[in-house]
Amino acid sequence: MKRVPIKDLVRFGCRLLEKKGMPHSSAQLLAEFIVETEAFRATTHGLGQLAYLVGSLGESLDPKKKVKVIRDKGAMVLLEGEKVPGILCMKELEVKLLKKVKSQGVAFGAVRGTTWVGSLGSHLVPYSKAGYLAMAWAQTSACKDCAPLGGIDARFSTNPIAVAFPTAKVPMLADFSTASYSMAAVRGMINRGEKSSIPRFIDSTGTPTCDPSVLDKGGSIMFTGLDLEGHKFYGLSLFIEAMTAMAGGSANHPDRPSRQSAMVMVLNPSFFGGATYYMKEIKRFVDHVKKARVRKGFDAIRLPGERGFAALNEAKKRGVPLDNSKLAMLEKMAKEYNIEWEVA
Amino acid sequence: MKRVPIKDLVRFGCRLLEKKGMPHSSAQLLAEFIVETEAFRATTHGLGQLAYLVGSLGESLDPKKKVKVIRDKGAMVLLEGEKVPGILCMKELEVKLLKKVKSQGVAFGAVRGTTWVGSLGSHLVPYSKAGYLAMAWAQTSACKDCAPLGGIDARFSTNPIAVAFPTAKVPMLADFSTASYSMAAVRGMINRGEKSSIPRFIDSTGTPTCDPSVLDKGGSIMFTGLDLEGHKFYGLSLFIEAMTAMAGGSANHPDRPSRQSAMVMVLNPSFFGGATYYMKEIKRFVDHVKKARVRKGFDAIRLPGERGFAALNEAKKRGVPLDNSKLAMLEKMAKEYNIEWEVA
Repeated sequence: MKRVPIKDLVRFGCRLLEKKGMPHSSAQLLAEFIVETEAFRATTHGLGQLAYLVGSLGESLDPKKKVKVIRDKGAMVLLEGEKVPGILCMKELEVKLLKKVKSQGVAFGAVRGTTWVGSLGSHLVPYSKAGYLAMAWAQTSACKDCAPLGGIDARFSTNPIAVAFPTAKVPMLADFSTASYSMAAVRGMINRGEKSSIPRFIDSTGTPTCDPSVLDKGGSIMFTGLDLEGHKFYGLSLFIEAMTAMAGGSANHPDRPSRQSAMVMVLNPSFFGGATYYMKEIKRFVDHVKKARVRKGFDAIRLPGERGFAALNEAKKRGVPLDNSKLAMLEKMAKEYNIEWEVA
Repeated sequence: MKRVPIKDLVRFGCRLLEKKGMPHSSAQLLAEFIVETEAFRATTHGLGQLAYLVGSLGESLDPKKKVKVIRDKGAMVLLEGEKVPGILCMKELEVKLLKKVKSQGVAFGAVRGTTWVGSLGSHLVPYSKAGYLAMAWAQTSACKDCAPLGGIDARFSTNPIAVAFPTAKVPMLADFSTASYSMAAVRGMINRGEKSSIPRFIDSTGTPTCDPSVLDKGGSIMFTGLDLEGHKFYGLSLFIEAMTAMAGGSANHPDRPSRQSAMVMVLNPSFFGGATYYMKEIKRFVDHVKKARVRKGFDAIRLPGERGFAALNEAKKRGVPLDNSKLAMLEKMAKEYNIEWEVA
């Protein structure tokens, strides 16, 4: 592991995206988001995004195309992100939702027809930092990742959910797949030849298995909760497909071009019980949670996101830790696009 | 099992509640909701509510008290339900949210300080029938049901979530606890002397166990997903506590009086991709889901809610099936309050 300063990584990412024809302001936004996600240790959705963007800009993505506002009325907004990087769509949504929730107490927005929005949870950080609660859902239209409960053939992407809220310290931030594993985690397991400890996959005949490689042979990932409790996340995943259809996006359809949709709800405590009450009550509650005795096999009671924010703060002081494969990826891109890149 | 016509049960419930001092219109609303929930086979939240209301009206509940509107602005509304039956608060919220979502595309409402709202999912049916998507969350403030992940001491109620959306046939309706079991299910298991097949509880020393009776001795229910995947529902449950604090309600606090808070989000496809597009796309998607091959050990691919709506339709024709214990409960109340009650 080598630690590389955040600003160096952002500058590198920004130049790379500019070389691919992206205007500076968009490139800067994208690079900052990607590097902060890596620094947060959401590493499956971090710097790897740069390689994805470099491969897609000028092809499936247009570096200059702007998000299209389909409807913007009261507390709601609908954006269309055809050929626009998903992260930029989410940043555009953020600008609109922050304004709406400030003046109206509630805001709901959707982006349809775009591509990989990256780390869904990272998109909620600005809402929490502004004092708001936020929930987000995302869907990809052409995936064959999860089968309906009791079914063999996959009909869902791993449809993730993220929730975030302000606390007296760092925000609570949870971000997870409705599937038992995210596809990035499954890819990692396949590459490393790993298996799950109990069956969390289904092969193409419908038999439960610990082997993630069935995904490449017509198999699927079980929903979180597996057979015993999988009906709950099956219900949530169905709801995400319905929200996608509502937004005018494509619900699951493996024969259509793959697109991503994302939905975000934001809530302003000032319009409800009051921001002061909220902060006082959430502090008391979090203290109450933290005072629970710790079980054997665990080392502390944590809120989701605590470790990520600690890693991000550490990275701000000491740089972002990168392993050899990520360093090699950056060096390769530096050479290919003739960008200055030196790690001390 | 005896089948009793819905209208007889509603009339009986209505008279019973009127005897407890409730105005006819409120009693009618309550009785209809409770009987339909029973007919839907959400039996843990069905006619048992009548016994609960009879025991509480005039005590912790005031049969004549009205819901207080704290704030009603744009797409948001906040209600206070102190001493008002939770179901009536949710019906009041429904009237307001249906108006808002029709004219604004999005609506979000919260009720705080009330009591048992009953079956959370049943409250979403009217939104689906009107063509809207809906999601709801509920919390009870003083429960000791679930411990934070890695913790021993309980800090959460079973904080349920419900989602619903219209399809070409009956609505999809999923309603579940963030805990591995709802408390009603746990009580049933304890009464019948049942255990879980794998450990889904934690005793007061933090040891996982299959024995639900630990709940009465300082133990708790694990989150859905258990130790392996419990962090996901732990995050969702935390978010429900934060929404409660936002609404000005009490987040978990076993030393304060027990209150319930509930939050509902409603979305109108007409304001997004269009109602026609939505219905066409959801029909295509549901057909696609249903065409998946069925796994061994399962008999069909179902959407959550399918069986409940089938039972409700059957009950409309043939009456609501009631077992002896429910019949005895109704007879006892009939005698006590001198209400005509005869089952053919």
